[in-house]
Amino acid sequence: MKLYVSPRAPNPKRVRMFMAEKNMTDITLVPVDLNAHQHSEPSYVAKSPLSRVPVLELDDGTCISESRAICTYLESLVPDNNLMGVDGLERAQIEMADRLVEWYVLLPTMQWIRHVHPGLAPLEKPQFPAFGESQAEKRGPGLDWLESTLGKQAFVAGKRFTIADITAFCTIEFSRLMKFKPAEAGYPHIQAWRDRVAQRASASAGDN
Amino acid sequence: MKLYVSPRAPNPKRVRMFMAEKNMTDITLVPVDLNAHQHSEPSYVAKSPLSRVPVLELDDGTCISESRAICTYLESLVPDNNLMGVDGLERAQIEMADRLVEWYVLLPTMQWIRHVHPGLAPLEKPQFPAFGESQAEKRGPGLDWLESTLGKQAFVAGKRFTIADITAFCTIEFSRLMKFKPAEAGYPHIQAWRDRVAQRASASAGDN
Repeated sequence: MKLYVSPRAPNPKRVRMFMAEKNMTDITLVPVDLNAHQHSEPSYVAKSPLSRVPVLELDDGTCISESRAICTYLESLVPDNNLMGVDGLERAQIEMADRLVEWYVLLPTMQWIRHVHPGLAPLEKPQFPAFGESQAEKRGPGLDWLESTLGKQAFVAGKRFTIADITAFCTIEFSRLMKFKPAEAGYPHIQAWRDRVAQRASASAGDN
Repeated sequence: MKLYVSPRAPNPKRVRMFMAEKNMTDITLVPVDLNAHQHSEPSYVAKSPLSRVPVLELDDGTCISESRAICTYLESLVPDNNLMGVDGLERAQIEMADRLVEWYVLLPTMQWIRHVHPGLAPLEKPQFPAFGESQAEKRGPGLDWLESTLGKQAFVAGKRFTIADITAFCTIEFSRLMKFKPAEAGYPHIQAWRDRVAQRASASAGDN
């Protein structure tokens, strides 16, 4: 299998942390240069119809895009070190936590960065800086929920490390582009959890 | 079980169509009046930390928010009339299609409507109309992918009706608020598929 990735982008990092937690080392990484617009070339669009990274290509040529869908497939291949739930209720609860992070922390963070950061101008046309700045504030309710959650339990979806921690960790690390540090922003529980996750062997996956 | 819903909102409709496809008639519907800000009352926030509808409340008081997470739980309760995949690969492929609809059609549609439509002004503060109008155009790649997909296969994720069709149908119906009609916008395959889905018994679920 091959995984098409771009270094330092948050979504490829999500899948690479997931693979690292599963000790999956047999997937070939294929770099895609976003700045050279390789993701818009027809050969890549044939694999990823919306030109996004990452994409998992199976040995028969079947391609799966969308980070969480790729993780669903990898979890079915390697059930050990479960990260997405073992029964219907736990799968739903982990998916709920993962989606709360995605929609209410990752999405406004991405929109904040993409509409404000000069480095993202080539990828986000046109940028709307005032909208982007509003997204920094829209992260408030999502970050407040995450802070409250991590004040009550060790991990984002409960007592154990799951895919929701991966999504949240990649979001917090990505927001360092905007010099965001949880402790300085009044989120000590998020900071303590982030520092614990950063100690895991998987934490540096996808950084280069 | 109880499902907290708001009529005509796209996310509660997703879960109600899913329930209708599963012939689940034993879930009590509890209306939440968004215009009266019932979703911001402490008793509701205790069930839905980000104040969103829908929420599924189990008989033991456990609450699950996020439409797709609720569907994951319902699918585990009623595996017949499978809508989310029967093995790891199919689950991943359906999740991929569902997410492509969500992120590249539903998200820009919601942002278009929320930032432009006067009726949404009380829920989206502040509105950024120029950003909203840009989102109408950002739907292009997602709608082009959906049109191409439905030109090659009967349903959004393949040969059979799945949760990805529900997400796409609720998105297209929601965009009628902006007078969007696929055929008039140059998407005949989406229109033909929409008209077929509209014939299903589940199609009117959540409309009132």
